[in-house]
Amino acid sequence: MKILGIIGGMGPQATIDLYQKITDHTAATRDQDHLHILIDSYPQIPDRTAHICGSGDDPLPYLVRSARRLEAAGAELLLMPCNAAHHYIRALRERTILPFLHIADCAIAALSTRCPPGSRVAVLSTRGTRHSGIYRDALQQAGYHPVEPDEAQTAALMRCIYDGAKAGNTAAYAPLLAETVATIAADSLILACTELPLFLPWWQDSRPVIDSTDALARAAVAAAQETS
Amino acid sequence: MKILGIIGGMGPQATIDLYQKITDHTAATRDQDHLHILIDSYPQIPDRTAHICGSGDDPLPYLVRSARRLEAAGAELLLMPCNAAHHYIRALRERTILPFLHIADCAIAALSTRCPPGSRVAVLSTRGTRHSGIYRDALQQAGYHPVEPDEAQTAALMRCIYDGAKAGNTAAYAPLLAETVATIAADSLILACTELPLFLPWWQDSRPVIDSTDALARAAVAAAQETS
Repeated sequence: MKILGIIGGMGPQATIDLYQKITDHTAATRDQDHLHILIDSYPQIPDRTAHICGSGDDPLPYLVRSARRLEAAGAELLLMPCNAAHHYIRALRERTILPFLHIADCAIAALSTRCPPGSRVAVLSTRGTRHSGIYRDALQQAGYHPVEPDEAQTAALMRCIYDGAKAGNTAAYAPLLAETVATIAADSLILACTELPLFLPWWQDSRPVIDSTDALARAAVAAAQETS
Repeated sequence: MKILGIIGGMGPQATIDLYQKITDHTAATRDQDHLHILIDSYPQIPDRTAHICGSGDDPLPYLVRSARRLEAAGAELLLMPCNAAHHYIRALRERTILPFLHIADCAIAALSTRCPPGSRVAVLSTRGTRHSGIYRDALQQAGYHPVEPDEAQTAALMRCIYDGAKAGNTAAYAPLLAETVATIAADSLILACTELPLFLPWWQDSRPVIDSTDALARAAVAAAQETS
């Protein structure tokens, strides 16, 4: 069984959500059946969107320090419950010897079990993730038509994520999320920001919704249990 | 700001509960306002109650390994969301240079703000914690009358904790918890097992209820923010 290492705190509630989903997806009837997980909840990592969009401190050295702490503690497989942080994953992979799960790979694998190639997939994310192109490129490679929210829709999503979920006001911003997403023409939706699944107790959509945190959790449980 | 180190996974759901409560009790409107927390969710630590009561592997070497991992990763203050694990805290303190918050101290400090000395305090715990005497001794020193559940009541609490919370059947065991606690004559209750606060969505009592996880979370937030 591999020891999972989570570069977390982006934000803490999204990391709690991942930890909860890993726990829920592990078949267990007693403590000892659960996975060994190391979490570095390090909210001091600078804002990813700000840096990707050209302002603010570079998160990369912070992400590297977090990976090193997890290495030092004994982690064997790294994951990050923050989509925008994956903008830095190539540089991070060069700076750690540990393997890394990629959240977009996990989300698109989950999508492929529910929605056929050729369909339109809305990528609900921060401006940073949109700007990084992570999902656009991977969806195109997998044969899907990525649908990116326009500037007004993205501004509304940013309010839901920053003024809502990250500020502890998730329920209050659920109506804005619902209104915004309703205006996006697509066959399915990817929650490509780990703050967005936090809205699920107060928001739903009739189209298939792919939760990137849940996809990462399921992939992590499978990878940790793989016999190597 | 001190980096918190959590020896966790006893069980994982109790550690998630602590992480959630630390997050809730931190004044924050953005990621970067939150505390830096390292969590070693290590459910492979052998069962505390079994060992305290004379069977099963010794958890101490596992607890020491967890403390060392957190040290290696940079933790500055340790805490354990498991009451029974505090049976080993003296030995653990001798084996790490890091300071340690004691969950019973936190719970009794919280009790003292709500209930006067001289009153009867029921200690709801595993058989291991009861056997260790952690709460009995500390409550007597603080001038309270500890009330320990009898053998039948303890057996029922053990079922709630092991067959209920640890096995993922919390809601189903809430009626048994309610019936059992109703038969205990006391002025207030300490949830002296970190699985017991997991019942709070489905169970309440008219007497003051001290949640040891919540008390530990509040003390951890205060200690992490202390200027040293």
